[in-house]
Amino acid sequence: MVERLKERIKQEGQNLGRGILKVDGFINHQVDAELMILVGRELAERFGRAGATKVLTAEISGIAPALTTAMALSIPVVYARKTKPITMPDQVYRQTAPSHTKGRHVELMASPEFLRPSDRILIVDDFLATGQTIAALVRLVEEAGAKLVGIGTLIEKRFEGGRALLEKSGVPIESLVVITDMSDGRIVFGE
Amino acid sequence: MVERLKERIKQEGQNLGRGILKVDGFINHQVDAELMILVGRELAERFGRAGATKVLTAEISGIAPALTTAMALSIPVVYARKTKPITMPDQVYRQTAPSHTKGRHVELMASPEFLRPSDRILIVDDFLATGQTIAALVRLVEEAGAKLVGIGTLIEKRFEGGRALLEKSGVPIESLVVITDMSDGRIVFGE
Repeated sequence: MVERLKERIKQEGQNLGRGILKVDGFINHQVDAELMILVGRELAERFGRAGATKVLTAEISGIAPALTTAMALSIPVVYARKTKPITMPDQVYRQTAPSHTKGRHVELMASPEFLRPSDRILIVDDFLATGQTIAALVRLVEEAGAKLVGIGTLIEKRFEGGRALLEKSGVPIESLVVITDMSDGRIVFGE
Repeated sequence: MVERLKERIKQEGQNLGRGILKVDGFINHQVDAELMILVGRELAERFGRAGATKVLTAEISGIAPALTTAMALSIPVVYARKTKPITMPDQVYRQTAPSHTKGRHVELMASPEFLRPSDRILIVDDFLATGQTIAALVRLVEEAGAKLVGIGTLIEKRFEGGRALLEKSGVPIESLVVITDMSDGRIVFGE
């Protein structure tokens, strides 16, 4: 499975510079539904013993892999909202993250109705880059008094340091594909 | 399957007034992954003979049902973006829709890389209400020169008139659950 994702990145991924990897043909604009099923199964297998009760992700591009992971684990998925929908209560969990790719801060909100102190949360996102978005999700879990049990992502850009930031959470961090270098137009894969 | 979705709306759906149906415990904030698989299978079955090559939806809440429909049909899904990601080319298909629930206009953008004249497009969204968002997706399909083959949604609020707006597109419109009246705090289901 991991090889299939890596091959796809090799074939279709584009290094746009400044650490930006274009994979919008199969992950985050057009989504390869079959690949996403396999991604979800793989993450579910890696975290199968963590006893997660919910998957948590951030809209928008985290939704597809988080949903397929939740499917494979037969648990619900919650996606933190960046703008408050009309159906969300006034009192919400709310954390802020600087967005590298958007050049501004984004808010992440989750309803207390769906993140409970009794929940064991597996965070899933498409990218682990600077780790700032995922760190904000970790703070949402803490704010809810729930227990974080793992962090899983499809693609880790290790040179952006997110893993180091998140390791202090003390939970297993799994990335299906690791990229160690994107300087000079290259895409160098790690082990 | 349809009965299961209807039961869930009866049990957990809340009529917040002004036609707003809160279903964020299983559709559009927390997502019931297993229910969403069934929804996707049902829509795939209803449009199985349409020969769709891609599912098209709008971020954010359309992504989950569109992805599961695409899974069941073994085709990719494209989600139209509301803000332009850094990975999107300068020239994109772009349509505007007034948003009833947001009280402003939203833009929907799709990359010409992924909507091709040869594509046969099945549009899937969570709600069919005023039909304005879906009508903008239909215009994206037209702008791309692709062929629209069907429109499928989970919940239709028939009293908001979206079906009438979309029927001029000439394609089959399928809604799994139809709500005919939400006045006075009620949620009245159609046939």
